Amino acid sequence: MASKGLQGVVIGQTKLADIDGDAGELIYVGYDIDDLAHHVSFEEVCFLLWNGRLPKQAELTELQRQLGSQRALRPEMLELLRAFPRDADPMAALRTAVSALGLYDSDADDISDEALRRKSIFLTAQVPTLVATFHRLRSGAEPLPPRPELGTAADFLYLLNGEEASATRVKTMDAALVLHAEHGMNASTFSARVTAGTKSDLYSAITSAIGTLKGPLHGGANVEVMHMLREIDESGVSPREWVLRTLDEGGRVMGFGHRVYRAVDPRAKMLREMADEVMRESGDAHWLELSDQIRAVMDEEMQKRGKKIYPNVDFFSASVYTTLGIPMDLFSAVFAIARVSGWTAHLLEQYANNRLIRPESEYIGPRGLTVEPIAQR
Amino acid sequence: MASKGLQGVVIGQTKLADIDGDAGELIYVGYDIDDLAHHVSFEEVCFLLWNGRLPKQAELTELQRQLGSQRALRPEMLELLRAFPRDADPMAALRTAVSALGLYDSDADDISDEALRRKSIFLTAQVPTLVATFHRLRSGAEPLPPRPELGTAADFLYLLNGEEASATRVKTMDAALVLHAEHGMNASTFSARVTAGTKSDLYSAITSAIGTLKGPLHGGANVEVMHMLREIDESGVSPREWVLRTLDEGGRVMGFGHRVYRAVDPRAKMLREMADEVMRESGDAHWLELSDQIRAVMDEEMQKRGKKIYPNVDFFSASVYTTLGIPMDLFSAVFAIARVSGWTAHLLEQYANNRLIRPESEYIGPRGLTVEPIAQR
Repeated sequence: MASKGLQGVVIGQTKLADIDGDAGELIYVGYDIDDLAHHVSFEEVCFLLWNGRLPKQAELTELQRQLGSQRALRPEMLELLRAFPRDADPMAALRTAVSALGLYDSDADDISDEALRRKSIFLTAQVPTLVATFHRLRSGAEPLPPRPELGTAADFLYLLNGEEASATRVKTMDAALVLHAEHGMNASTFSARVTAGTKSDLYSAITSAIGTLKGPLHGGANVEVMHMLREIDESGVSPREWVLRTLDEGGRVMGFGHRVYRAVDPRAKMLREMADEVMRESGDAHWLELSDQIRAVMDEEMQKRGKKIYPNVDFFSASVYTTLGIPMDLFSAVFAIARVSGWTAHLLEQYANNRLIRPESEYIGPRGLTVEPIAQR
Repeated sequence: MASKGLQGVVIGQTKLADIDGDAGELIYVGYDIDDLAHHVSFEEVCFLLWNGRLPKQAELTELQRQLGSQRALRPEMLELLRAFPRDADPMAALRTAVSALGLYDSDADDISDEALRRKSIFLTAQVPTLVATFHRLRSGAEPLPPRPELGTAADFLYLLNGEEASATRVKTMDAALVLHAEHGMNASTFSARVTAGTKSDLYSAITSAIGTLKGPLHGGANVEVMHMLREIDESGVSPREWVLRTLDEGGRVMGFGHRVYRAVDPRAKMLREMADEVMRESGDAHWLELSDQIRAVMDEEMQKRGKKIYPNVDFFSASVYTTLGIPMDLFSAVFAIARVSGWTAHLLEQYANNRLIRPESEYIGPRGLTVEPIAQR
């Protein structure tokens, strides 16, 4: 039997991302994640993932134009979102909305490379609008029309809050999107590939990915971190005491450890650095300082215990997103806004060289039974 | 690297189904599929899959009552289906509708065993109504209220066609549901498990399964068979000639061969047998006779060539469903009506003993690149 959860099982090749879990390194198509987060925009990363190289200026301008012009929702989609119950989980709303997008695409089942590229841009443009629009509607505010001249990060913050975000906030949001764009054969990406493996369509595959990302062991992990931060805040004890007590009781400190990393998640480091400026600007250092304190205790304790458990990307994204004014229950949806680029890039690979993904299971049930008439059971 | 498409890779244990591909045998929880299809109803199979044993009379009556009482759609779901474009793919509509069901379940994220069992019954009750209602609406007919006193097969045929089906048709439909209820770690079931592996909710997992089943390499396979039957019908040559020409040209005869079976798919045999009565009753023997002719030529040719390629379940379901009056583009949705029982049974297993399903990939892209300023790219 394969390792449970397919841990360590290599199921295919990719040109998109590589993770060195021991060194704490992540590359997208050859570029180190630090280099990308400091020097390129989310749109440049989209181009990189879809085309295997960074764009020239004219190519970037064209992609920005395409994304900008495809952000607006068609009236039927707006009506659909209006009909959703306001208390619906934002990821369930996004899952349903992306599935519904497929109903209106008469080309939905075209899985030619050209059609897939067109739809990858379309979905990357639509997802932020869907998330922000659902949030506006559930808050009782009117949805805003997207602004094609803004980048993805800036337009999302504008659509969400109804005002243009500061340059610092946009820069941090953009870097967060870059850091979350791609991460190898993670669970949501894998589910998208399994769906595409039957030659099902791109909307089906992305819908699967969103549903998979929704789980607390994946996209929902930073929500768990935020719950923990709040719990510590309200506990009346110091972060140090809370962490030590939790560890002593065999409990789990959220946001530490990762299936793949046995070193500091490089995305965690970057996110923390980038948040300094936002924190200074907003004057709200509370959540980030609390996170720093927890991290310090954990570093100390894990070293004492000889354990290689380090903060992961979710640990800092919780406080960074909160400082950016993003409501906790939208964290996974923000993750989806970024990751749709990586999902679609993986799907381009999957469809180009497809094989049905159909493992086997070991049967451990009974054998040799015969149906008895119901009166005799 | 694991075998591509995870072929032959055992990824976990199950008590639900076992397939002996060489012998052409399939069991659900110890019972041979032939025994089940001849002697129990779809509802009894649901109980078997969810509980690991066949129901006593009182238990079956209670399950029938629960399924019957939960078939009606809430008004919001009916409005949603009314808003769908009439030319939408029925599987895309079902995927979106099942995802939307999650929006209205305030308990959607409860993955306790008790909640999962409740929702498994609910989804098994709702899916047939969603499929039939979408079909009525796109045909310009008013949807009908479900009839709680009917079984799943009878109610589905009634909701679809607006009149009660004959006992023969109901029996064949019911047997088709039994034959399609479960099939081990197939692609749609696996995608549901991958989604559930992040501890995402049941609606997300079933939505993934529907999107995966939608593909032509899985649920869509019998549609391909029907296309082929029509093509042969219109080709002006005999089925024998058509098959031989297709084989000579290296083409594929749809509905033959299976990833797991290297013998006759036992479900194919059963379906063919059961169709005799429907065919006699309807007086329409055309598609079934055509299928029989193709099968005869294929059997002969494959034996000559020493190849173990046999008809699979899709080969006969195409003509059986057509003879039952089910439109071709609903075939996969009918598959979903049956398989939702197997999917939910697998999910009970997955959640009860969960582990994140996250494989790895081999990186074959570039390394060591440095971001150049955009003007210099």
